[in-house]
Amino acid sequence: MKITMEEVTTYLTQGQRFLITAHVNPDGDAIGSSLGLQAYLRRQGKTAEVFIDDDLPRNLSFMPGFSGIRRPDGADWKPDFLVVLDTDTNRIGEVPKCAPGAKILNIDHHISNDGKADYLYLAKRSATAEMLFEILESSGVDFPLEVAIPLYVGIATDTGFFRYSNTTPLTMRVGGRLLEVGIRPSDISELLELKPLTVVKGQAAALDTLELFANGRVAGLFLEKTFVDQMESTDSFIDLIRVIEGVEIAVLIKAVEERRCRVSIRSKGINVSDIAVRFGGGGHIRAAGCTLNMTLAEAKAALVPVLSEAVAKEP
Amino acid sequence: MKITMEEVTTYLTQGQRFLITAHVNPDGDAIGSSLGLQAYLRRQGKTAEVFIDDDLPRNLSFMPGFSGIRRPDGADWKPDFLVVLDTDTNRIGEVPKCAPGAKILNIDHHISNDGKADYLYLAKRSATAEMLFEILESSGVDFPLEVAIPLYVGIATDTGFFRYSNTTPLTMRVGGRLLEVGIRPSDISELLELKPLTVVKGQAAALDTLELFANGRVAGLFLEKTFVDQMESTDSFIDLIRVIEGVEIAVLIKAVEERRCRVSIRSKGINVSDIAVRFGGGGHIRAAGCTLNMTLAEAKAALVPVLSEAVAKEP
Repeated sequence: MKITMEEVTTYLTQGQRFLITAHVNPDGDAIGSSLGLQAYLRRQGKTAEVFIDDDLPRNLSFMPGFSGIRRPDGADWKPDFLVVLDTDTNRIGEVPKCAPGAKILNIDHHISNDGKADYLYLAKRSATAEMLFEILESSGVDFPLEVAIPLYVGIATDTGFFRYSNTTPLTMRVGGRLLEVGIRPSDISELLELKPLTVVKGQAAALDTLELFANGRVAGLFLEKTFVDQMESTDSFIDLIRVIEGVEIAVLIKAVEERRCRVSIRSKGINVSDIAVRFGGGGHIRAAGCTLNMTLAEAKAALVPVLSEAVAKEP
Repeated sequence: MKITMEEVTTYLTQGQRFLITAHVNPDGDAIGSSLGLQAYLRRQGKTAEVFIDDDLPRNLSFMPGFSGIRRPDGADWKPDFLVVLDTDTNRIGEVPKCAPGAKILNIDHHISNDGKADYLYLAKRSATAEMLFEILESSGVDFPLEVAIPLYVGIATDTGFFRYSNTTPLTMRVGGRLLEVGIRPSDISELLELKPLTVVKGQAAALDTLELFANGRVAGLFLEKTFVDQMESTDSFIDLIRVIEGVEIAVLIKAVEERRCRVSIRSKGINVSDIAVRFGGGGHIRAAGCTLNMTLAEAKAALVPVLSEAVAKEP
């Protein structure tokens, strides 16, 4: 059932015990929203735990409360509400087993949300953290740093520091309010940008695999499993090539098993979500991905012609 | 003589003919401020030209008005005001020769400004473009895109898209207002981030020169002249290494002549401006630079011990 922001506030006020979760493969908004809400609820004297059913990215560990995030343990935590953030209930792993009788309160900014939660507050916002800022602001609270930092991280990571097309005047206003509270953007950005030496050096090795197709309008990086296994993260590698002059679609294919590849696709406007969906994946118009049960060579042979065809259709 | 924002407005209203300039080695704020002010003055029915005594970065050429920027031609343009933006009068080349009788109106956010202009409006702001936004907003004008785009570019480049320590709540407010006018941040950021293929591939070659010193607290890239000559720009290369975990100072030394090296230094807090000054350069606490009349090997031998000593003094 869809609910309003005011109703969210009502449920947050009524409940005493909250279990908070967010999507697997968690990002800055998933974790930032969870920790920001947890810190807020605890200040209101309530019980609030964050369970996420996946590994957590190490570069987010500076956030207050991070070390308290747990995997679901299968026990019944008897919360009044299971709060599901930044996703619908399809991507939260085994967390529901810890809250069998609880009402599900879902706060999300993805239009693809399936709407199956007991209560869903869905809005077109840059980040779930932006929605939480509005909810907490409307309830008149101040923003101590343990609430402000996670919410700022959620917004900053989902908007690429106020650069992506989801950035709105509201996003800027919320960012400004969080600076007033004491956020130091340079400290946060430096922490978010930290990379292990192996990953920095790995960028050079990844660039050695760079190939251009379709008269330079498609660029690709193709990473062997032996290389990927040495990298803590390859998330930033596609940014190296999407900025090449003339490139309209950038693709990164990495082998995670002998016959299993993860694919990231970025575009300057061509709908790559459509393409990812055809390969069993999904995402946004300009940023999408899929997983292919193929070797690296097979995945490349399957995808590159489709991407080249997509740019050929554009003027 | 120091003047107030209101006095700037008065002079902009009184004058009819304006010659606008900014510092040599111009960046996004120098060019953005110049073009934003020019577009505003022209809409007020005034004559306004932009002269900059240097080459212009090609990645800023998307800004409206860019193609009209000229080098000073030595003729007397007889403006009422020579408007000097984002610097004092020491770094504007031969432009004053085109305005021998004009009053100099200086608008700048660098505290190092020498204060020698006839009229100086100096304020602690993220960018000169942020100061211009306030000036134009106070005069009640609307912001057509030919004013808004250059001002947004000035702020976005000087703050690294609202990430650097100079970003304030005011910066966020101004950014939000410019989005309301119709700025699309993703379009602007994509244009600003564009890199030629040679530069993208050059990142891999540059990373091959990576060396760490002082137990990994200092990282350096050392670029030979033959390599530098092939690169349209090496400005972004230092960002590759300043993000390495544990690195407190990053340095890039590039040979531009056989016995002449340009040096860029970045830190996470250690005052590298002091170090640059000792080598005849300058800058900000966390971002400074100098030019050394040495071979690449000599420059490296001169600088690395000083940087290692600087980090050794920190806990």
